[in-house]
Amino acid sequence: MSVRNFSRHLVEPLEIEDFVIQVMAKTSPTKWHLAHVSWFFETFVLDKFLDDYNSMHPQYAYFFNSYYLQTGVPFSRAQRGVLSRPTVKEVFEFRKYVDEQMLSFFESCTEEDWKEAAKVLEIGINHEQQHQELILTDLKYMLAQNPLMPVYRESRSAGSSAPEPINWINFSEGMTEIGNSGNEFTYDNEHPVHKTFVQNFELADRLVTNAEYLEFMQDGGYERSELWLDEGWSAVKENEWKSPLYWYLKNDQWHIFTLSGSGMLDPNEPVTHVSYYEADAYARWMDSRLPTEQEWEHACADLPIEGNFVENEHYHPVAHKIPGKGLKQMYGDVWEWTMSSYAPYPGYKPLAGALGEYNGKFMANQYVLRGGSCATSQTHIRKTYRNFFHADARWQFNGIRLAR
Amino acid sequence: MSVRNFSRHLVEPLEIEDFVIQVMAKTSPTKWHLAHVSWFFETFVLDKFLDDYNSMHPQYAYFFNSYYLQTGVPFSRAQRGVLSRPTVKEVFEFRKYVDEQMLSFFESCTEEDWKEAAKVLEIGINHEQQHQELILTDLKYMLAQNPLMPVYRESRSAGSSAPEPINWINFSEGMTEIGNSGNEFTYDNEHPVHKTFVQNFELADRLVTNAEYLEFMQDGGYERSELWLDEGWSAVKENEWKSPLYWYLKNDQWHIFTLSGSGMLDPNEPVTHVSYYEADAYARWMDSRLPTEQEWEHACADLPIEGNFVENEHYHPVAHKIPGKGLKQMYGDVWEWTMSSYAPYPGYKPLAGALGEYNGKFMANQYVLRGGSCATSQTHIRKTYRNFFHADARWQFNGIRLAR
Amino acid sequence: MSVRNFSRHLVEPLEIEDFVIQVMAKTSPTKWHLAHVSWFFETFVLDKFLDDYNSMHPQYAYFFNSYYLQTGVPFSRAQRGVLSRPTVKEVFEFRKYVDEQMLSFFESCTEEDWKEAAKVLEIGINHEQQHQELILTDLKYMLAQNPLMPVYRESRSAGSSAPEPINWINFSEGMTEIGNSGNEFTYDNEHPVHKTFVQNFELADRLVTNAEYLEFMQDGGYERSELWLDEGWSAVKENEWKSPLYWYLKNDQWHIFTLSGSGMLDPNEPVTHVSYYEADAYARWMDSRLPTEQEWEHACADLPIEGNFVENEHYHPVAHKIPGKGLKQMYGDVWEWTMSSYAPYPGYKPLAGALGEYNGKFMANQYVLRGGSCATSQTHIRKTYRNFFHADARWQFNGIRLAR
Amino acid sequence: MSVRNFSRHLVEPLEIEDFVIQVMAKTSPTKWHLAHVSWFFETFVLDKFLDDYNSMHPQYAYFFNSYYLQTGVPFSRAQRGVLSRPTVKEVFEFRKYVDEQMLSFFESCTEEDWKEAAKVLEIGINHEQQHQELILTDLKYMLAQNPLMPVYRESRSAGSSAPEPINWINFSEGMTEIGNSGNEFTYDNEHPVHKTFVQNFELADRLVTNAEYLEFMQDGGYERSELWLDEGWSAVKENEWKSPLYWYLKNDQWHIFTLSGSGMLDPNEPVTHVSYYEADAYARWMDSRLPTEQEWEHACADLPIEGNFVENEHYHPVAHKIPGKGLKQMYGDVWEWTMSSYAPYPGYKPLAGALGEYNGKFMANQYVLRGGSCATSQTHIRKTYRNFFHADARWQFNGIRLAR
Repeated sequence: MSVRNFSRHLVEPLEIEDFVIQVMAKTSPTKWHLAHVSWFFETFVLDKFLDDYNSMHPQYAYFFNSYYLQTGVPFSRAQRGVLSRPTVKEVFEFRKYVDEQMLSFFESCTEEDWKEAAKVLEIGINHEQQHQELILTDLKYMLAQNPLMPVYRESRSAGSSAPEPINWINFSEGMTEIGNSGNEFTYDNEHPVHKTFVQNFELADRLVTNAEYLEFMQDGGYERSELWLDEGWSAVKENEWKSPLYWYLKNDQWHIFTLSGSGMLDPNEPVTHVSYYEADAYARWMDSRLPTEQEWEHACADLPIEGNFVENEHYHPVAHKIPGKGLKQMYGDVWEWTMSSYAPYPGYKPLAGALGEYNGKFMANQYVLRGGSCATSQTHIRKTYRNFFHADARWQFNGIRLAR
Repeated sequence: MSVRNFSRHLVEPLEIEDFVIQVMAKTSPTKWHLAHVSWFFETFVLDKFLDDYNSMHPQYAYFFNSYYLQTGVPFSRAQRGVLSRPTVKEVFEFRKYVDEQMLSFFESCTEEDWKEAAKVLEIGINHEQQHQELILTDLKYMLAQNPLMPVYRESRSAGSSAPEPINWINFSEGMTEIGNSGNEFTYDNEHPVHKTFVQNFELADRLVTNAEYLEFMQDGGYERSELWLDEGWSAVKENEWKSPLYWYLKNDQWHIFTLSGSGMLDPNEPVTHVSYYEADAYARWMDSRLPTEQEWEHACADLPIEGNFVENEHYHPVAHKIPGKGLKQMYGDVWEWTMSSYAPYPGYKPLAGALGEYNGKFMANQYVLRGGSCATSQTHIRKTYRNFFHADARWQFNGIRLAR
Repeated sequence: MSVRNFSRHLVEPLEIEDFVIQVMAKTSPTKWHLAHVSWFFETFVLDKFLDDYNSMHPQYAYFFNSYYLQTGVPFSRAQRGVLSRPTVKEVFEFRKYVDEQMLSFFESCTEEDWKEAAKVLEIGINHEQQHQELILTDLKYMLAQNPLMPVYRESRSAGSSAPEPINWINFSEGMTEIGNSGNEFTYDNEHPVHKTFVQNFELADRLVTNAEYLEFMQDGGYERSELWLDEGWSAVKENEWKSPLYWYLKNDQWHIFTLSGSGMLDPNEPVTHVSYYEADAYARWMDSRLPTEQEWEHACADLPIEGNFVENEHYHPVAHKIPGKGLKQMYGDVWEWTMSSYAPYPGYKPLAGALGEYNGKFMANQYVLRGGSCATSQTHIRKTYRNFFHADARWQFNGIRLAR
Repeated sequence: MSVRNFSRHLVEPLEIEDFVIQVMAKTSPTKWHLAHVSWFFETFVLDKFLDDYNSMHPQYAYFFNSYYLQTGVPFSRAQRGVLSRPTVKEVFEFRKYVDEQMLSFFESCTEEDWKEAAKVLEIGINHEQQHQELILTDLKYMLAQNPLMPVYRESRSAGSSAPEPINWINFSEGMTEIGNSGNEFTYDNEHPVHKTFVQNFELADRLVTNAEYLEFMQDGGYERSELWLDEGWSAVKENEWKSPLYWYLKNDQWHIFTLSGSGMLDPNEPVTHVSYYEADAYARWMDSRLPTEQEWEHACADLPIEGNFVENEHYHPVAHKIPGKGLKQMYGDVWEWTMSSYAPYPGYKPLAGALGEYNGKFMANQYVLRGGSCATSQTHIRKTYRNFFHADARWQFNGIRLAR
């Protein structure tokens, strides 16, 4: 099962101490992520289809549930970092145990069970991919608190070249179809397919770069209230934001902390680790705006899913000049903030039972992001994929594409 | 100027002590509202058009600015209740002073200035109407903290009768126009008019009543996590919500605090003082949903603007059985939560200068409400009017109309 | 009853708006103080001695109890400022009602009851004197939040003259008696009289002045951690203390807010509105320390109780050069911080019943102050009187006398 | 160096994950304690006496400083748990490096340096003993958060027997000497020796047991406000205290979590993990009080230093019936709360330089404890030893001895 193995690959460079720590309620210790994805299989397959299933430990279901209230009250999210036990070793034993039980179940189950369980298995594999991305972003956030600025893993060299000036791609108004109608795996929030009307719009052909964002900063971007949403301005003041997350000044020069170490800021890279508020303020400064998720999906049309994904092992957006006309970097590198509040599509129905909590209950006060990032698996992403975070979230690989 | 006089009429029943208190950062003392609406005229008319304008007091501009950062840093919103001075008497003198200056300006100004200033005057009058509504809702919130449950003003008797069961009004999919194209006064957020596509939908012909909401409560509505948005469930737990705001149990019977005193809950009244989260959970429990703001506006079409507004002097939604078919109570009684996140219309342009802060900078993390309430002036409301509050706001006269 | 009348005299200059506001949990609205002192008589005399006593309002006992848990759970201290009703007028009616009931009770009660009730009456009068001081200090704190810096009342002119350099008065080690053995009124915390051993010590003959404290500031007093207690240093950092409370810089000159208006700092006045931490840091900087309360009381011996009390109507410490040798300013002007943690004397017994909560339950984590201030009644103070506040309290008229 | 080895012995049973976690600001990760005690030697010996000393890592001084502001601003105390690096292995390398440097320094230093450095060395060794106790108490607090209730180490069996009823030992009033005048190692806070007068008092001959404390609980101890100091009552309400820390109900029976596992409460053991507030409330309920530190020290006189210390390897107070008359358990088992606020002795002088911050700056708002506990080294304790914690501290092995 290559997705399961990839989890193990991701954590290879870590010291045991790195698996344990939780810095804020929204991030989790690596060992929790590793256990939670197995809990998912245990809860939604083994517990459900096997009458006599014995969990490895009676309290693991309590520890490793994230937020599924219909399966029982989970251990407090903000307290995941106070648990030294189970140890990392025990977590790997738990993973092994669940894998073996899963294999044995699939070998012996009825065809009817197989059909149903296979669907959940597919969700579980996609679920693990999401947590692989979170392992990287949560780990980065934790390592960045440490003045030693530890290196997670060397990056494959990517080179750097300055991109061409932004080209605006034009789209005409008209009816379009949004949502997924294919046979591929999808989440419930991509359904149902539905018609919508899109106005005329233009989309930037590439992502905003560090150099461009720096101009905004040098033009007083973080000091000019008129560029910001009201809550964005409050966030700037309260958190004393003066740059994207992970940027820092050293000898009056902007440096950046990455999973592969720290160094001078590369002006050519796509800007990342910005909140929705910063993306919005930058766009306003540029006399433009962020795209809606419908515009983004409509524009993507038949674009191939290519880009800088986690398989590339850069763990960071890359500064490539991509030749040719048309939209570039729509997939990979950074998640692209849209101006669309995360909401159900017309006629949306969540999955039945506890799995219905996967997506639906988060459909308020969050914003949709599209396209995947350098920490996303290429096999995980698609045109209709909807990611979502709160407007102040900065620890994900989030970036900016302009519209107008 | 009848709008200015109505402010004075509204506060007639108050003791001086009632003008001063601020209970939470989101509510303001009555005397602040009264001064702020005059500050608006002073700042956006007198200061702007008169070279030699002298304010009554050099610090009033600082005290009575709400959130317009382009006109100077305002006095902290959360601290409005620590100021015993200027006194209520001085605030009325300030209002008088500004009124006189305004009159004198309009008598003597150039035609060119008149044209421009008249637009701001119109905004200012509408602005005062908004604050008249806030005076009532903020006052209600303050009085409700007091175990003495003071009466603001006797209500005109309205009678009570049980409404007919909900009738679902059907609307077919198709293109429609959203936004305001008329000659009436409008805010910038109602522009531009634009085409949109609306799916098939049904709208309840009337508001949800207390009796219906009570059934939800008795069915465990506030204890069943599966009915709630994730952040709604957190709000229920943190704030220990067990009913709408202002409901309380006495001898095991539900009672309600109103601006006209406290008493037994009337089952026939439209339910009010519910958050977006409660409206959403109720709708889910009813196997339906809230309308989008586009659906609401589309459904309203040519409906006359009639209903229970502040001019009726009930200061509370009324329990009337309204005869006839078709949509009822679309205007007045309670603001109707929509599922639409407050966002700019395609092509939206805020007003130039500080007045651009009036609406635009709040377009994130809030939800649109439509139709006006028993605390809204009839002359203030229209089909395209967009009100907005955070999802946890309960102190406004907000209620529920179902869609599906 | 002159103490009762003095309460009325104190609030004469106030606007109704001034009676209502509460700025922090530790301060109370003036109208609450005025009502609470009558509640005291009602609860501990009328309710107790009269079988058929009718309170003016059934909920006043709930509103106006401060912290006596044995008489019922009081209304939340931090919420006293959310109540606009009862109004100021109603509070004065309540005071009048209780006064009349008290008079009528004392005219008709048995001799036995008279004896017992007279003791409580005496406590109640002293209690009202304490709240008169709090009315002034709480009011000052409230007015100081207001950028208008309102004047409470003109002060009688006091003149200003520079004091002589500090003279150190020497005391030899030996046994002494601490606590009150006289016939005057006392609180339970001044008992029992007990022997204690005092080491050799020296006491400054006068209070520290603003000029002297300013030297400490100019020598980096607020930036040098080594001068501070650990929690004092945290308080400096968290609250950004840079001077005593009510000092402010204007045109690079230190000014001061007083109950009689604002103006240039008088260097000759005793420094006041300093916390225990500041007093302690100043003393350390001076290579000295604060006195213990035993030293203070021992030193006072037979000193007459003279000084700048509230009867002088300065409402501020005065800058007098006092002729002669020996200890000066031991009474009046400012409360003098001692280094003694507030603790029971050996053999201490609190009063029986709810009145035992008056003092005893506060004997932890507070520090004793001695001598009374410009806001204290002369008839209220005595050599053995123990006042107490938390180490970070700055809104009382607290000052510094050095020992070594 | 046996003290250094004992640190290693203490952490032998731990998993690497156990070294990393910090649960609250007042507790530290085990690996931090291990590094900090070496930092102490590095800072106060190597850095000071060697011109060319090279630390192992330029940032370790920043990480491992606790609170010595005169040696530089330390890394935030509350954030010690966000650092996964340096790893446990690296911390042990740091310890080894410092040990070697210390050895080499002492081999080659001048006699003059030797004299001065030896004093600091002695402080450093005592300092490490204090942190050994904190390693155990902090670790216990961390493990107790974990529903798995991990066992730190098996305890040597101690048996259990019910003690005799309390005998009150009588002491007559008179002058006594407090403080240390011997040649043994002492901290600065035990100086200078000074005379004091002690009143008549009686001291309980043994500690309060769990059975006795349970009676207090069963008599409504945690529900009766009149038994508590005001701030104690607030702590009970806010923290929902219903028993000592680490007690929990299971099948309606009181159980207890210890470093050696969880089980039924032993009624004969001395009660421990109580705050000053609980000790004070218990004493009030018993119509007695806590001793002053002077009484405790006076009573101890020439008592031998024997008891249940960490060398016994029980890691918990033991339930022994101790034969004979006179004071028992004065040393070991649990620290005994005194009613004395932690304050400087008359004439106290802190050490010069940064080491003066060791004790002096904490002399406010804390209470003195005496006698050492089951987690204290026998060689660390003495009659004049003053430990101190805030009144709400419960995670130390603190217990109760009554006086009256």
